Amino acid sequence: MKLSELGEFGLINRIAPQFLDNLNEKVKGIGDDCAVMPFNENESLLITTDMLIEDVHFLCDKISPLELGHKSLAVNLSDIAAMGGNPHSAYLSIGIPRNTEVSWLDQFFQGIKVLADETKTLLLGGDTTKSIDRLVINIVVIGKADSTKVKYRSTAGPGDVICVTENIGDSGGGLKVMLENLDDKNDDDISYLIKAHHKPRPHLKEGQWLSAKTGVNAMIDVSDGIDSDIKRIMEQSKIGAKVNLETLPLSGALRRISGKFSWNPYEIAAATGEDYCLLVTIDKDKYLDLAEAFEKEFKRPLYKIGETRYLQSELQYYYNGKQVLLSKHGFDHFI
Amino acid sequence: MKLSELGEFGLINRIAPQFLDNLNEKVKGIGDDCAVMPFNENESLLITTDMLIEDVHFLCDKISPLELGHKSLAVNLSDIAAMGGNPHSAYLSIGIPRNTEVSWLDQFFQGIKVLADETKTLLLGGDTTKSIDRLVINIVVIGKADSTKVKYRSTAGPGDVICVTENIGDSGGGLKVMLENLDDKNDDDISYLIKAHHKPRPHLKEGQWLSAKTGVNAMIDVSDGIDSDIKRIMEQSKIGAKVNLETLPLSGALRRISGKFSWNPYEIAAATGEDYCLLVTIDKDKYLDLAEAFEKEFKRPLYKIGETRYLQSELQYYYNGKQVLLSKHGFDHFI
Repeated sequence: MKLSELGEFGLINRIAPQFLDNLNEKVKGIGDDCAVMPFNENESLLITTDMLIEDVHFLCDKISPLELGHKSLAVNLSDIAAMGGNPHSAYLSIGIPRNTEVSWLDQFFQGIKVLADETKTLLLGGDTTKSIDRLVINIVVIGKADSTKVKYRSTAGPGDVICVTENIGDSGGGLKVMLENLDDKNDDDISYLIKAHHKPRPHLKEGQWLSAKTGVNAMIDVSDGIDSDIKRIMEQSKIGAKVNLETLPLSGALRRISGKFSWNPYEIAAATGEDYCLLVTIDKDKYLDLAEAFEKEFKRPLYKIGETRYLQSELQYYYNGKQVLLSKHGFDHFI
Repeated sequence: MKLSELGEFGLINRIAPQFLDNLNEKVKGIGDDCAVMPFNENESLLITTDMLIEDVHFLCDKISPLELGHKSLAVNLSDIAAMGGNPHSAYLSIGIPRNTEVSWLDQFFQGIKVLADETKTLLLGGDTTKSIDRLVINIVVIGKADSTKVKYRSTAGPGDVICVTENIGDSGGGLKVMLENLDDKNDDDISYLIKAHHKPRPHLKEGQWLSAKTGVNAMIDVSDGIDSDIKRIMEQSKIGAKVNLETLPLSGALRRISGKFSWNPYEIAAATGEDYCLLVTIDKDKYLDLAEAFEKEFKRPLYKIGETRYLQSELQYYYNGKQVLLSKHGFDHFI
């Protein structure tokens, strides 16, 4: 059997069980945004890693080295955010083709440096090596979190309100614009969408704020699209869920560009991913107070997009009260 | 300027300084086998990472998936060994071409699993993703060590005895055999050398034992060859060094194969690397007692191969008392 028949999640489900024995209750392994290990009496360490490969995750003629450095670190910080942590340090491995310009690398490291400084993340180590033809980047981030406040994918309750912390779909719209060669740099909306794809903001402050609140049951960052990411929460929390598509928060830019090119913006928002905001499930009795406090703190709503259900079943989509099928599904790396 | 003109160490020296400010005295960043961060009152965390790229670090038609899984983890455990640590957990990122056989991946993970179990290393997380054509593997290992016993590259003293914990050159000989298409599977010596290249043993027990001894001043694992690795100690400890080539411990297999193909085994032992034993510098007054105790513990000598010198200068090689030049230098990934 080829990997393409098994798929990414098939592979993880095949491999993970053999590595999950020997774990004690304080150590959390494969299956969440970060691994968790005890650090001291009050704190846990969070560890996450992401690999980015040229022509799979980015195109060097589309993204600037400054943005690529930023994004490589940001996607890892987003995993730390998803569990309510504070980043401590980062470890970069990079495979570089020999003919790479040093000035390009200077800019790439500058992109890492600026975000590392902003988020007080120390770059403490790594590995540099030759690559034959494609750039390969792997970053690990270690963070810390109050052990009693770490949020998991597996702790959503039935009847929870599902929320996201920011507009979704901009990054997916930016990717689509580039893949379809519509990237007119003079169009402000298009530039906005491409920037959302190339320079995501990890929601560290939102993650820390939410993780400290009672009523927030589960968190995940939106990396593969809410369609995939909600399913991970459903699977691990053994519940169902429904999403009301008309409530997905969409930017004006995505709405306008979708109108111009006859795209379905809800499909983009639900299935393309790389938004790197947070998706949270909240006790329905606590949602209103929490949403009010969130808006006061962050000057934008905590967007309600659906709810979890008692029975574990398929993820259901509704549009203005009518059930619909989403034509595209979240991103699976091998299919 | 292209990266190929700058070289790997040129790049690291260019990048590292900007990431070394903001560190407090208990945190050790770029520049040693592992980064070090405080863990609790007595222990520090050690963090290391290594990236392996197909056709750069391994050839899939030469190494079995079981060996590749083993080696990917072993090279990281070797860095933990070099600072006297105990491995805690590993984090694997892997970029896989779509047409990879699942049975190949099963074997690869089995190779990781066996060594992880042997060394009590928990595989706690990672990232799986698509690669266009070449397999890419990145592993991070987190270890723990007694903070007062961690050994660095920067703490060698002048006049120290330089030792290695095992024969060197077998791995380099195995690589040379394969690159020159001399890999006759029926020749026991050749099989032995190839196995040394494909299935290195991290010297964790030796590293822990040595790090607990007074008189052991500096440690590093032999990854790029003693020529490179001694130079790293010289640079960081600001000292000179000489190596007596005739004292390099060579296996019978390497001697015989070198004789057969008219190779210089000392050149292979000094410059090719991937031995993954440890190189240590020891107070000259403590060496004899320590070597005796080492031999009692590990049933083989702690091989003395040279000494450090007061004045920082070029690494000098001697052969039977006469100074010689080594024709090949340690491996630099970009030149």
